[in-house]
Amino acid sequence: MSSSAHESPLRWAEIIAVGTELLVPPRVDTNSLYITERLNDLGIEVRAKTVVADRREDLDAVLRAAMKRTALVVLCGGLGPTDDDLTRDAVAQVLSRPLVEDAAVVDQIRQRFALRRARMPENNRRQALVPAGAAVLANTHGTAPGLWIEHDGGLVVLLPGPPNELMPMFDAVVRDRLSPRCGDMRVYRRVMRICGQAESDVDEAVSPVYARWPSEALPVFTTVLTAPAQVELHLSVRAASDTLAATRLEACASQLRVVLGADLFSQDGRTLEEVVGQLLLERKWRIAVAESCTGGLISSRLTDVPGSSGYVALNAVCYSNDAKSEWLGVPAALLAEHGAVSESVAVAMARGIRQLAAVDLGLGVTGIAGPTGGSDRKPVGTVMIAVATATSEAVRTYRFPGDRARIKQFASQMALDMARRLMQDTPIGGAFVVTTRQVSR
Amino acid sequence: MSSSAHESPLRWAEIIAVGTELLVPPRVDTNSLYITERLNDLGIEVRAKTVVADRREDLDAVLRAAMKRTALVVLCGGLGPTDDDLTRDAVAQVLSRPLVEDAAVVDQIRQRFALRRARMPENNRRQALVPAGAAVLANTHGTAPGLWIEHDGGLVVLLPGPPNELMPMFDAVVRDRLSPRCGDMRVYRRVMRICGQAESDVDEAVSPVYARWPSEALPVFTTVLTAPAQVELHLSVRAASDTLAATRLEACASQLRVVLGADLFSQDGRTLEEVVGQLLLERKWRIAVAESCTGGLISSRLTDVPGSSGYVALNAVCYSNDAKSEWLGVPAALLAEHGAVSESVAVAMARGIRQLAAVDLGLGVTGIAGPTGGSDRKPVGTVMIAVATATSEAVRTYRFPGDRARIKQFASQMALDMARRLMQDTPIGGAFVVTTRQVSR
Repeated sequence: MSSSAHESPLRWAEIIAVGTELLVPPRVDTNSLYITERLNDLGIEVRAKTVVADRREDLDAVLRAAMKRTALVVLCGGLGPTDDDLTRDAVAQVLSRPLVEDAAVVDQIRQRFALRRARMPENNRRQALVPAGAAVLANTHGTAPGLWIEHDGGLVVLLPGPPNELMPMFDAVVRDRLSPRCGDMRVYRRVMRICGQAESDVDEAVSPVYARWPSEALPVFTTVLTAPAQVELHLSVRAASDTLAATRLEACASQLRVVLGADLFSQDGRTLEEVVGQLLLERKWRIAVAESCTGGLISSRLTDVPGSSGYVALNAVCYSNDAKSEWLGVPAALLAEHGAVSESVAVAMARGIRQLAAVDLGLGVTGIAGPTGGSDRKPVGTVMIAVATATSEAVRTYRFPGDRARIKQFASQMALDMARRLMQDTPIGGAFVVTTRQVSR
Repeated sequence: MSSSAHESPLRWAEIIAVGTELLVPPRVDTNSLYITERLNDLGIEVRAKTVVADRREDLDAVLRAAMKRTALVVLCGGLGPTDDDLTRDAVAQVLSRPLVEDAAVVDQIRQRFALRRARMPENNRRQALVPAGAAVLANTHGTAPGLWIEHDGGLVVLLPGPPNELMPMFDAVVRDRLSPRCGDMRVYRRVMRICGQAESDVDEAVSPVYARWPSEALPVFTTVLTAPAQVELHLSVRAASDTLAATRLEACASQLRVVLGADLFSQDGRTLEEVVGQLLLERKWRIAVAESCTGGLISSRLTDVPGSSGYVALNAVCYSNDAKSEWLGVPAALLAEHGAVSESVAVAMARGIRQLAAVDLGLGVTGIAGPTGGSDRKPVGTVMIAVATATSEAVRTYRFPGDRARIKQFASQMALDMARRLMQDTPIGGAFVVTTRQVSR
């Protein structure tokens, strides 16, 4: 049917990703994450998403069920040239429309092959089959065109599975076609990030606050995501204007600021390394890191930020005792007396790299990432982090849970957070801490 | 119904993840990835997986549809104490069973709160509601028990949403309960990893090979996954014994070895950093890395491997020209003449870090990760990688696609691969290469 003006705007969608290969254990369906975000931007919320194997009866049933629930169904994948690419056939069958070869599409596919000096295999003709009445969406990155089908007051959109074809097609064609159907409402988000409190403490503090928001005028919904030593609050609101949304989200953010204090390090989705970078730039400071158990992860995170060459000059990964003493000037006697995993050594590393790189702020990290090397007194997960400036030094001993990868993540996060708090002059958060020592000099 | 011996073994499953929060754009449903892998281990294949919002009518419909298709449906999440935790109610309704409070479960929940010196909120009683006839699965990490319901020849399993509750529950209870229902067949996998060929070249080389396997006796299915400068082939086979599966997978692997040659760096799922670590250990060699544009990522990847302290002593991240010349001894004249992003500087960095750390193998990496800093001659993505030993040096200029994060990933991968190939004495792969220079001395 036509997209006449009296229709109610599109509000809900379902996404169906087609392909047996998407059900292999490590495989994440990144397409649906991308499409969900883009649909949200248009004010359309995703009600369900399904990954289904290349099996006609299942695909037919899943499509029928989705069309019953929502006016917009987006299918991804299964548009290739082989026999197990079933999406075109399933859609044609479920919508009771014959498949018709589209001569223009055949031409385009043939030209794509000609560019590579190849003949179009006969198989690829299948990609030019189009359910009667469908609009063809050009694929500038591959052979399978997308399809846009108005049906019975609803809308079925077929997109190719490869993300490098699907994403540009959505942005170039699908968004503009959907936009006039979406009304004035948009979904706006704001991401707040917290470090220095255990997840359960954050939740205890903030859940009484955000629990009220959904029942207030202009309801705001909150989702809690967690990463090592980080809690994220994703706030979302449906609103008819940028201003309305921004005002409402800011009101919610201000309530969170009250209960979270200095543990709230980002209110605009910035990562911890971005926040640290910004603080360094504001102070015209440079930073240097001496890492042992984190093995370069802190350095890598700092340099993930564009422009980090403005404040990172030199970092060192000193795994061995020799490297710690020769490079960083950690006294051999200190290493012998306290062991490489000790607060004294962490402080000497921070001090050493700060002087060596001639920067304002030095970080030193030493610990036991495991799986071996732990002891009763210093079990796997024990990490000492020190921060040094011209006027002060501080060191903390942490005990982090999890495997080697998680312990590295935890330690890199807490080290960056110590740098942040030093620059913001706020006390260090309490999570995972065993001991603290502050040295002013 | 009972699990009598004449039933056919469980072959197919569907997974339903329940929760509006799972539909927030960045959120990945990791539970279903975990369960898929565990079910595969038992010989059960996942036919579809769905993420559905907290909305009763949708959840009911999705559950009904899944039960029609497969004998095993696993639901994750929606077992919490609040009103939007709907899974118990939906299952009771769809299976037409009344919800009954389980006194033992109430006791357990009460005890959990008592341990934290808290009273059980009245809300949490909801978590003790059990569809009549369901078996309760103990939750050792939280308050919501799992549920196991035999129904009409099929099986519905409810698991709590938090991964730290779901995973141990599956491993401790669900697996053992499923195992006798699964027959003798298991799904076996083998992961092969390739570096040094573009994805399309790998596919052109291997697809004629793996295309035959599904129609042969003991069919093997292949899934291709890609990461920056890495192609993974996931082979899977359903077989009744470890030996049968291993023999069949090895026959397939040997065919891949023929067409892939030295580009195939891993045949057992090991990562490139694990392979490089193993090669170093075999040679009793140590490695040192001087990184500029990769910012510590190579070092972090090398030290992700347990035991890497056996071959990593000292790595340096030298972002600034000063750091390159002062630390690594890169001649200032070289930096002035060729610029920091040049093959000469990459070689001098590899040579410098090798000597400084007194190791066998040095890597030097310099380039433009962007988004700024590119030029016509050296656009963003240009990276020089050098490798140096006591007897030889080699350097390559690459041009990598993508944003800053991807360029770092690409460069770290190709640097590790250059180290691997040097140790395996095989020529360097051709993907992304602009120029090559080999210097024997």
